[in-house]
Parts: sequence; C-alpha cells; structure tokens
Amino acid sequence: MIGSKIRVEMKGSEHHVLEGTLNSVDDYLNLHLLETVEIVHGERARSLGSVILRGNNIILISPVE
Amino acid sequence: MIGSKIRVEMKGSEHHVLEGTLNSVDDYLNLHLLETVEIVHGERARSLGSVILRGNNIILISPVE
Amino acid sequence: MIGSKIRVEMKGSEHHVLEGTLNSVDDYLNLHLLETVEIVHGERARSLGSVILRGNNIILISPVE
Amino acid sequence: MIGSKIRVEMKGSEHHVLEGTLNSVDDYLNLHLLETVEIVHGERARSLGSVILRGNNIILISPVE
Amino acid sequence: MIGSKIRVEMKGSEHHVLEGTLNSVDDYLNLHLLETVEIVHGERARSLGSVILRGNNIILISPVE
Amino acid sequence: MIGSKIRVEMKGSEHHVLEGTLNSVDDYLNLHLLETVEIVHGERARSLGSVILRGNNIILISPVE
Repeated sequence: MIGSKIRVEMKGSEHHVLEGTLNSVDDYLNLHLLETVEIVHGERARSLGSVILRGNNIILISPVE
Repeated sequence: MIGSKIRVEMKGSEHHVLEGTLNSVDDYLNLHLLETVEIVHGERARSLGSVILRGNNIILISPVE
Repeated sequence: MIGSKIRVEMKGSEHHVLEGTLNSVDDYLNLHLLETVEIVHGERARSLGSVILRGNNIILISPVE
Repeated sequence: MIGSKIRVEMKGSEHHVLEGTLNSVDDYLNLHLLETVEIVHGERARSLGSVILRGNNIILISPVE
Repeated sequence: MIGSKIRVEMKGSEHHVLEGTLNSVDDYLNLHLLETVEIVHGERARSLGSVILRGNNIILISPVE
Repeated sequence: MIGSKIRVEMKGSEHHVLEGTLNSVDDYLNLHLLETVEIVHGERARSLGSVILRGNNIILISPVE
C-alpha cells in the first residue's frame, strides 16, 4: 500500500478520519502519511501535511480510490 | 474462520459494527476483511470494501450466519 | 474457569456486559465464549452465540452462579 | 499488598470504582479480588464477589484503610 | 524525577488530574506516588495518599514547581 | 524531528492538543517536549513547560511551521 492513498479512522473523538498518501509503516502499524487531510462529516476540513499516526489508536484503514 | 463472514464490533464510537469476509488475521488479531459493510442500528449503512481492522481496538468478533 | 459461565464487562460503550460459557482463553486474556448473551440494564437483550472477546478491552470478569 | 483491601479505579465508564481484598496480581497488573464491591458515588452499590480486573484498564490503585 | 512533585493527567474521565511525590517508576511508566491529591478544576479535591498509576493510562506528566 | 516544534494530539478528552519542542523520543513513542503549550480551540490556552507524553495515548503528530 506504500505510495497509495488511504483513509484512516482514528480513536480520540468520534468520526476522526484522515486521508493521505502512505509514506511508510512500521511493525506497530504506526503510519507516516503525506499530504494528509482531515475529513469531517465526509468533507475535506483541514490540511495537515506530513503526519505520524500512532498504530494502537488506529481503528480502521481502507484504500481511497 | 478464514473465508467466512464475520461481524466485528470496534472501539471508537458507540455501536461501531462492521461485517465482512475474513481474508487474513495476524498475531495481534489485526483483521483484513473483504467486502466490508458498516452496520448502523442493525442496517447496512456504507460499503467499505477492503479494510484493515486494528486488533487492539476490536471489542468482539462473532460469526455471521 | 473453562466450561463455567462467566460475566464479562467490556470497554466500548457504557454498561457493555456479556454472559457466556468460557470455552477457551489465551495468554492475552482473549476469551472464546459459547452461548453468549448480551446484557443491557440487567436484562438478557440479544443472543450472540459463539464470540471472541479481545483481552485488552475486557474490564472485569466475574463468575455467574 | 496481597491480602489487604484495595480500591481500584477502572476505565470503561466514568467513576467506575471497585473495592476488594487483593488475592493475587500478575506481571500485567491483572488483579484477582475477593469480596469485591462496586462503589457508585462513594456508596457500596453492588456485591460482585470474586472478580478479575484487566491490568491495562486499571487507572489507579490505592489502599483502603 | 524521583522524590520530586509531579502532576499526572490520566485517562478515564475528562480532566482527571493527580499531584503527588514520585516514589518509584517502572519500565511500563507505572508510577507510585505518595501524598497524592486529586485535582478537580484546578482545586485540590481529595487526598488519596499512596497510589499506583497504571502507565498505559497516563496521558501527560509534568513537574510541579 | 529532535529540536523542532511539533503539534501532538492526545487521547483523553476531545481536542486535547499540545505544541512544544521535541527534546527526546523513546522506542514506545513516549515524547519529552519543552516549552509545551496546551491548545484549546486553536488558541494557546496554558503553558505547561517540560512535559512527558505517553506514547500509546498519542493520536497524531505533525510538524509546526
């Protein structure tokens, strides 16, 4: 999935969803995303750029077509 | 259970339930589901396709008959 | 406790309680229950049959007499 | 602390507090309590008897005098 | 930081903050505090004495001057 | 990223965001930040100074420009 665009649902608050290009992943499923955008109620809400997502707080990963 | 249809209840928000065909599972109970559908209030709400579910955020797994 | 009936309180939503017969348990306290019933406000609410409960999301286990 | 009475605050719902006699503890801080009582708003609310508390969902342990 | 006074923010309920003197810490960041006081809305609310705080449920540790 | 300013979103309560200078990070993604400031609704709300953030309760890390 490296290099492809993914959608990641995180814990923390309800409906915390991010989309970005997967740059790297480690053994703990920590993800490094590029060009990351926060999605609120299905809309692109905020541009976050390069982010690290903590693996144990990921709920769900799915590909973005 | 590989190849069979399962129902998975996740943490994150209340009543976050997914159904799909179990494609693979690793040592951390991370699940790869195919033809995944999100279930809201017992109804098929959204089609997600291929998803990875993080093992430590799974609450409950049960078979779908 | 294998073969005996237990009550398990889970994380996820408030008062998420399950009762079932303990079929097996692994090193991570993942539980496999049979004839599992969901308990809501002290009442048997829904029959779930065979379920796997993720160990790290278990709050409390107690025997059912 | 084995054999002494302790107060344990758990995750799951707000103010989920239990008191009991510590029977055993393992490397993961999983606790086995005897004569366990659930405490709601500072009052003894419900008698649970023998319970296992999952270590990673414990917030705080303190002695009961 | 052993022997110094620290402020610890815990998971469980919102704004769950404790202050105490750090007596010991283990590899999992489990903390043993002495003379612990619960802080609610910035006020010293309740004296807890000797407490064990579970490392994985700690959000933030900061020194108290 | 050592020495650079980062923004960290934590679990615990909704929109719990901190900004600070990354002083060190360990294998568990525990972070030591200096000159840490709590951000509430996008505003600098409270100065916390030197803080330790527990790795498993981090949701997201992003650079601050």
